[in-house]
Amino acid sequence: MSEPPIFLSLCLQAIMVLFACRVAGWIAERFGQPSVVGMMIAGVLLGPSLLGAIWPVEQAWLFPKSSRDVLKFLAELGVGGYLFCVGLDFDLAQVRQRSRLTLAVAAAGVLVPFCLAIPLALATQNSPDWFKVGATLSQQVLFLGAALSVTAFPMLVWIVRSKGLANSPMGTVAISAGAIGDAFAWVILAVVVASFSGEPNVIIRCLVGGALIIALARYLVPRLLAGLSAECDRRQALTPAAMGAVAAIFAAFVALSTWCGMHAVFGGFLCGLALPRGELTLGLRRIEPGIAMWLLPFFFAFSGLQTRIDLLISPSALGLLALVLLVSLLGKGGACWIAARWAGLPAAEAGGVASLMNARGLMELILLNVGLQAGLVGNVLFSVLVVMAVVTTLLAGPLFEWTYGRQARKAGELGKL
Amino acid sequence: MSEPPIFLSLCLQAIMVLFACRVAGWIAERFGQPSVVGMMIAGVLLGPSLLGAIWPVEQAWLFPKSSRDVLKFLAELGVGGYLFCVGLDFDLAQVRQRSRLTLAVAAAGVLVPFCLAIPLALATQNSPDWFKVGATLSQQVLFLGAALSVTAFPMLVWIVRSKGLANSPMGTVAISAGAIGDAFAWVILAVVVASFSGEPNVIIRCLVGGALIIALARYLVPRLLAGLSAECDRRQALTPAAMGAVAAIFAAFVALSTWCGMHAVFGGFLCGLALPRGELTLGLRRIEPGIAMWLLPFFFAFSGLQTRIDLLISPSALGLLALVLLVSLLGKGGACWIAARWAGLPAAEAGGVASLMNARGLMELILLNVGLQAGLVGNVLFSVLVVMAVVTTLLAGPLFEWTYGRQARKAGELGKL
Repeated sequence: MSEPPIFLSLCLQAIMVLFACRVAGWIAERFGQPSVVGMMIAGVLLGPSLLGAIWPVEQAWLFPKSSRDVLKFLAELGVGGYLFCVGLDFDLAQVRQRSRLTLAVAAAGVLVPFCLAIPLALATQNSPDWFKVGATLSQQVLFLGAALSVTAFPMLVWIVRSKGLANSPMGTVAISAGAIGDAFAWVILAVVVASFSGEPNVIIRCLVGGALIIALARYLVPRLLAGLSAECDRRQALTPAAMGAVAAIFAAFVALSTWCGMHAVFGGFLCGLALPRGELTLGLRRIEPGIAMWLLPFFFAFSGLQTRIDLLISPSALGLLALVLLVSLLGKGGACWIAARWAGLPAAEAGGVASLMNARGLMELILLNVGLQAGLVGNVLFSVLVVMAVVTTLLAGPLFEWTYGRQARKAGELGKL
Repeated sequence: MSEPPIFLSLCLQAIMVLFACRVAGWIAERFGQPSVVGMMIAGVLLGPSLLGAIWPVEQAWLFPKSSRDVLKFLAELGVGGYLFCVGLDFDLAQVRQRSRLTLAVAAAGVLVPFCLAIPLALATQNSPDWFKVGATLSQQVLFLGAALSVTAFPMLVWIVRSKGLANSPMGTVAISAGAIGDAFAWVILAVVVASFSGEPNVIIRCLVGGALIIALARYLVPRLLAGLSAECDRRQALTPAAMGAVAAIFAAFVALSTWCGMHAVFGGFLCGLALPRGELTLGLRRIEPGIAMWLLPFFFAFSGLQTRIDLLISPSALGLLALVLLVSLLGKGGACWIAARWAGLPAAEAGGVASLMNARGLMELILLNVGLQAGLVGNVLFSVLVVMAVVTTLLAGPLFEWTYGRQARKAGELGKL
């Protein structure tokens, strides 16, 4: 079969990707799972793991190399835009409340995985399937630690909100601890990627760019947009000028975070966080369903194209998978549960927090893609960690129900699951 | 300067394009023009006509060849999506009303330009700057006729609505005649492009694909979406399933219209037209500002990159420009005015219809890009017709005011311009 022109090829991809993700999301919801779980799996199935294994010629025809640039662009725009929406919704004030409990859970959810990453890195050290040649032990430990400790932050927020727990102690702690832990994991990731790329000016660029982007978000953007935001409030609507300005600022943040070696998602999240609250942010929130339904599927497809489940069918890979699953469940979920109990949360609520903190979701896929694009992670470890992300995300719903949901529903605290 | 990676380069382009289009749109509105006029001009200025003429190295660095595929994709998605929104809003019932008057204006607006295209094609025949080698006289006549007779249909609808004239005789006639004339011009364009590409199976593909896409829009899509649309009505909201299905159907329509040699805009428009009316279409209409502000600017930039105003600075090109402007004003505007008068509309209202029908706007740019990509039109003629599109669009507002606005405001029929 001759390859179709790029535009046509992208349309066909869009049909497949949108359809597969929507159906998979619907199936996931039928089973009481968040739709993101189904979409993650759909992306993997469209890649070499299933479609490419059964129909290699057709899969290569549908996803030709020439269309990868555009697909990658859509994928990055999708996650960048989604994290922008998460940033829009994010309330920094919540992080400041309940600081002892939050810090205990966040610290446990980060420190234990990083400690457990040391033996894991020692076990995976001598194979290019796991880490590419040139990665030092400390880079491997830090990358694995970040991969083990990351939280499906947007999904966590979504679950907490949809169950009406946003203002409960459990909800606040889970959201704040998830945010702190994720911020830490992302900073570590940025340092690892910058140091792995070797050139000293990359590290400088990462530090200078990171400082610059935070300064812009903190000081410049609120001032730049104050007038436009006030005009939106006055007119009770998003003005064209505000829409244009926000889009240009979003592109600038994404460009800056990409330039300094981090990922577009940082820029997107910080941009959303930086916008002055009011009619402007209320209006922009309405784009979230469009981004989640129409752009994010391309991210799942792009991630799935990099994932090769077939590589896992070897004793060493399966052994590694079992080890990673065990470490990730006990190291993150277990540590969070103990910390929450220690800081005084009742057992059921501690279990709820731990099961939410344990889901890796989308964030793990983003982090893994950063590691893969930097040339740090090998194919097998990438695929192992993708499966870990899917499994921990699949477990979040049932674990939450088992530890917290049943009791809470009996006590009348929780309306419906 | 070394070229930045594609993603970074696209972010920088996005900042420039979004900023320039928004500022130009704002300036246009200050002068009482629709913002689309400003954006058209901004796109031209970012291309080789101004930015590339002053800073050629910087312009080539900002818009590198490697990023063209993604930029083109965004441009096509932008116009396809915008025409989808126009299709959503389009009311076929209106076309069926006032049929005599509408048909007279539509026929005059199509036939006279096609007749005037014959001497124009004879004048431009012997130069590859105007038409590429291989274009027959009949192809040249048909292309020029389509280019002269096209109407800025979305802008016309927007002006008519924003002035509260949607249900006046003048508004209905302008909208219906614009739609009929445009449909005719687009069919002719599709035939010209298909016949120019030479292979007989392209023409067959165009006819079969065209028939198929209309059949899908008429019979399959309403049935496919009936259930999802009813569910949206029941829930008073856009459901995720409906959003996913609409996106996949949109991609299928765009793919089909591209495959059969027409442009993505046909597929987008027909898809919007085909959706069952109700909460589904009401919800989807909300995406229009996002598409108009965030995607359409890339279309203006992409068009502008192909336009070279500097090529016009030659006696023959300037002569052609003057001739084209004269023919387009008298041939389209004049013919529509006479037809409207003949069919019984008062002079002022006939003038209003004619000035609206005379604007070429965005549709001319789309049509010209189709001709350019097919290898039919030369650089000089392309640039001449871009200038004609800008001038006729700039004239629409003042002509409307001069022929109709003043009288109507005195008579109390028109609130504000």
